[in-house]
Amino acid sequence: MVVNDSESISTKNVVINRINSHSSSALWDVLSVEEPLEIRICYGSASRQVKKNISVTMRTPGNDADLAIGFLFTEGIISSYVNIKKVYHLEVDCSMQKQNIVQVELADNFVPHLMQSDRNFYTTSSCGVCGKGSIQSIKTVSPFSHINRPEICLPIDVFYQLPVKLKEAQNEFAATGGIHASGLFTLEGDLILLREDVGRHNALDKLIGRALSDNSLPLAEHILLLSGRASFELIQKAAMAGISIVAAIGAPSSLAVELAKEFDMTLLGFLKENRFNIYNESKYHRIMSQL
Amino acid sequence: MVVNDSESISTKNVVINRINSHSSSALWDVLSVEEPLEIRICYGSASRQVKKNISVTMRTPGNDADLAIGFLFTEGIISSYVNIKKVYHLEVDCSMQKQNIVQVELADNFVPHLMQSDRNFYTTSSCGVCGKGSIQSIKTVSPFSHINRPEICLPIDVFYQLPVKLKEAQNEFAATGGIHASGLFTLEGDLILLREDVGRHNALDKLIGRALSDNSLPLAEHILLLSGRASFELIQKAAMAGISIVAAIGAPSSLAVELAKEFDMTLLGFLKENRFNIYNESKYHRIMSQL
Repeated sequence: MVVNDSESISTKNVVINRINSHSSSALWDVLSVEEPLEIRICYGSASRQVKKNISVTMRTPGNDADLAIGFLFTEGIISSYVNIKKVYHLEVDCSMQKQNIVQVELADNFVPHLMQSDRNFYTTSSCGVCGKGSIQSIKTVSPFSHINRPEICLPIDVFYQLPVKLKEAQNEFAATGGIHASGLFTLEGDLILLREDVGRHNALDKLIGRALSDNSLPLAEHILLLSGRASFELIQKAAMAGISIVAAIGAPSSLAVELAKEFDMTLLGFLKENRFNIYNESKYHRIMSQL
Repeated sequence: MVVNDSESISTKNVVINRINSHSSSALWDVLSVEEPLEIRICYGSASRQVKKNISVTMRTPGNDADLAIGFLFTEGIISSYVNIKKVYHLEVDCSMQKQNIVQVELADNFVPHLMQSDRNFYTTSSCGVCGKGSIQSIKTVSPFSHINRPEICLPIDVFYQLPVKLKEAQNEFAATGGIHASGLFTLEGDLILLREDVGRHNALDKLIGRALSDNSLPLAEHILLLSGRASFELIQKAAMAGISIVAAIGAPSSLAVELAKEFDMTLLGFLKENRFNIYNESKYHRIMSQL
């Protein structure tokens, strides 16, 4: 079902000149690979099959099936893993890169929700283009916006540990200094899933795609850690996956905070080893200073 | 010609809880505003006018005309400022935000190059989807890929000063900690243009749109400073504007380096106050340690 990523190359070695006040030295450096990925779907019946190019994104090769599945789900094009029959790379005749198209075959007679994709959650018919309209359209599409949610106590010490744990696990980050990560933690602060990419949205789609494939959505009792800032797009994807606790090492945007409030998600920003800001606290959550 | 941005709001005050090991305190915090912007064009003759929705991007309000013009130019949809007749916000009936659609009226009988836009420089007919194909398609479209270029000596001390100068000028960054910047400097290291946005590509489109409106392209004798990482998309936009020197405070991606080599641009990464890496040095440039 899932494509084999073992041949993917996510870093590349190049010779650079490192300059400082004392010297100039030629040495090997490691870059994060960035290559386009085209996501295609095919659907319909055996007698009448429709193929459609859904998206081209610049991504770091690796976990391409997770990325494609996650993207289709967070855009609302599919709503469950059972909507998928098969995922594979299409071979194309190009000397540079043979792994840049992923085709997703959808289940027989499943009709993908393509309107959401074309409108991309940014525009709604009722309201033109505005953040409020975008939030409402996500509410309509999100499969987990009305689930029962547990009450959770969140010790602050658990959050303090997360950035270090993410960084330790980010081998690629250590090597290239240029890659975003999304990490999924248990409520006890154990890292259970990590995905990286030059594009922050791709890292999260890869993570959500993997979780969907593992049948572990909604992720209402986990913590999502974002290595950078929390934009609207990332909180939207988290909401689609039923994630209720998001911590970002960087700043959230205004619309990210509004969306977190609307979905009653707990949203932390500027998370460091000994401090963070609470931008929204869910009515189901209690952040506590003592264990 | 240019829309009035004075009413735009690029930051928003919210009440947060700041947590550290000793205390939890409620206080005011400043967020970068993120709102969708729809870019529309209309073109054709007086008797037959075509309207087209080109893009919806999540951006920080402010300099929306620069953003729209820069986007149309860096995507190859227009090739000159004379292709534009008028730029204005369209009023829509929404309580939240009235400034989220910019319409660009193109010059009479000008036909926009929409194929480039649809394919978005990521796919080419000759080669399917690959980085090499993307680079070739930019070469075809870029109006400045064959201009005569001057020989330039670049003292390393000039580069060392740039990050501090950018940061000092980034009032918003200081306030919110969550916004990307693109800065345009002279070869002597003087900042002459700065644009900010929650989206790094928007910050650069705003800068290039302003420079196009000021009739100052190509920018072959300037330094572009990027506040974060250098992705393919940013180097592609820089190439479209004829920028030949790019310095990034973060890491470049593999495809960004390849594109810089293909366009013979000088590309620096990890620029700090006393060091940087040279990922490519143009044959027209010489980076020198002595003034």
